Amino acid sequence: MATTSRNEKYIISPNPTTTNLKRIVRGVDHRGENNEIAVIEERPLTIFLNRQEIVTAMTIGDYPEYLALGFLSNQHMLESYRDVCGVDYDDELEIVVVRTISQTTYEEKLKKKIKTSGCAVGTVFGDIMEGLENLTLSHSPLHISWLYELSVKINKTPSLYLEAGAIHGTVLCYQNHPLVYMEDVGRHNAVDKVAGWMLKHNETPEDKLLYTTGRLTSEMVIKTATMGIPILISRSGFTAWGVEIAKQVGMTLIGRLRGKRFFCLSGEKRLIRDIKT
Amino acid sequence: MATTSRNEKYIISPNPTTTNLKRIVRGVDHRGENNEIAVIEERPLTIFLNRQEIVTAMTIGDYPEYLALGFLSNQHMLESYRDVCGVDYDDELEIVVVRTISQTTYEEKLKKKIKTSGCAVGTVFGDIMEGLENLTLSHSPLHISWLYELSVKINKTPSLYLEAGAIHGTVLCYQNHPLVYMEDVGRHNAVDKVAGWMLKHNETPEDKLLYTTGRLTSEMVIKTATMGIPILISRSGFTAWGVEIAKQVGMTLIGRLRGKRFFCLSGEKRLIRDIKT
Repeated sequence: MATTSRNEKYIISPNPTTTNLKRIVRGVDHRGENNEIAVIEERPLTIFLNRQEIVTAMTIGDYPEYLALGFLSNQHMLESYRDVCGVDYDDELEIVVVRTISQTTYEEKLKKKIKTSGCAVGTVFGDIMEGLENLTLSHSPLHISWLYELSVKINKTPSLYLEAGAIHGTVLCYQNHPLVYMEDVGRHNAVDKVAGWMLKHNETPEDKLLYTTGRLTSEMVIKTATMGIPILISRSGFTAWGVEIAKQVGMTLIGRLRGKRFFCLSGEKRLIRDIKT
Repeated sequence: MATTSRNEKYIISPNPTTTNLKRIVRGVDHRGENNEIAVIEERPLTIFLNRQEIVTAMTIGDYPEYLALGFLSNQHMLESYRDVCGVDYDDELEIVVVRTISQTTYEEKLKKKIKTSGCAVGTVFGDIMEGLENLTLSHSPLHISWLYELSVKINKTPSLYLEAGAIHGTVLCYQNHPLVYMEDVGRHNAVDKVAGWMLKHNETPEDKLLYTTGRLTSEMVIKTATMGIPILISRSGFTAWGVEIAKQVGMTLIGRLRGKRFFCLSGEKRLIRDIKT
């Protein structure tokens, strides 16, 4: 996909006016007056890989296909969109089924995993770390001016966050252009939806950067690395393990981005100081 | 436990000076100057129930015993501390084993895994609404003056949050007295640690209220209800399902508590307007 002629338009931007992503709830305020406020939806969505139930995610419910594809891809259960022969979403049953051409290997592997570890979280996590051992992230530069421009553009974009709060956002960016802006009650879902979009559209990760409103935890750094994106930016803070993994894989990690201020705790070499700060 | 003669002292308060809960990390700031900042620790802790591996939580690492007891209790895998014959924590292996007198298997339950919208890998097992069908929460009152006093006291308490950010807090309170203040990278861990403390010390939930810095999602409301606490307060926002479950179980849900402002979206009947707002 050519990325040199981006304009300012998002490919996907938030849907703050979509009625089924938020609900008007009645209550009382501090003065005892009846009041209505907009509240974010949160629904279960169970992801299947072929006949195997994988996980139930709590999500706002938009882009179930991207969420399922991205989750499976970030869990190393799906390598390429070419392996996918169909994705079926059932709104009423709240399930999404990803069907692959060759079914047996993954299902067997997954069954084994669940049986051996009892509950998969630890095992899946261990496997994700394994996948990062030989990872090399590209040396694409990060102009400091992009950081500031992205921050302003993203914060001014109409979103469910501005409308109702209590939601996280993740934005795939190219240079100073935000491209795909996903929101969700869980920040891991927002990043998985971006991953699903990238998988389906065969987007190159090497020249991209990822912006998140959430904290830079181990999970966020691992997902970003698994997606092959070399730069992760947040207005929120860090965890020590997040920083450690970023250093290990050579990722540039920028946190506490507020106004002109930020901290870079890993991968400083990509920073290009093109403006005075 | 008698709760009428509380003084202003916490039973447990945060440990912002404890060195193994945060780390000083070197990096560069926006001006390109070398700088050191305090960053929260995040480590895996694998919880075992007898011989069964249950889950790996990502946690700051304090109070592993309370975290394990509280997680298992909130998952309906442990009913009373009388069932527990030992809790072993291995710092090096990063595991905690809860041993019970009568051994039960949760193989079937563990197969159904739900990833919550919470931060830092929240996981619940089995039917998310289990145990809530016949729940009756007590009718204890909530004075509005308590809300304001708790908010000021909690926000002024020295904490890892004030020290390093990127962390959530949950506080068990009685009237206007904060009693047990737990912090963690995942808000679900912070509330589980409170639950573990309550289980071990056989604390009564009926006259308590729970304060959290995190959002009022389905997971937080369900955990609070499972603990038998009738009132949940947050300075953050709501999700629609969180509100729905709170209404269903008759819980008082206060969100967006900032200064004198707040919204009550469920259980208004407990509010006592003892001061002018």
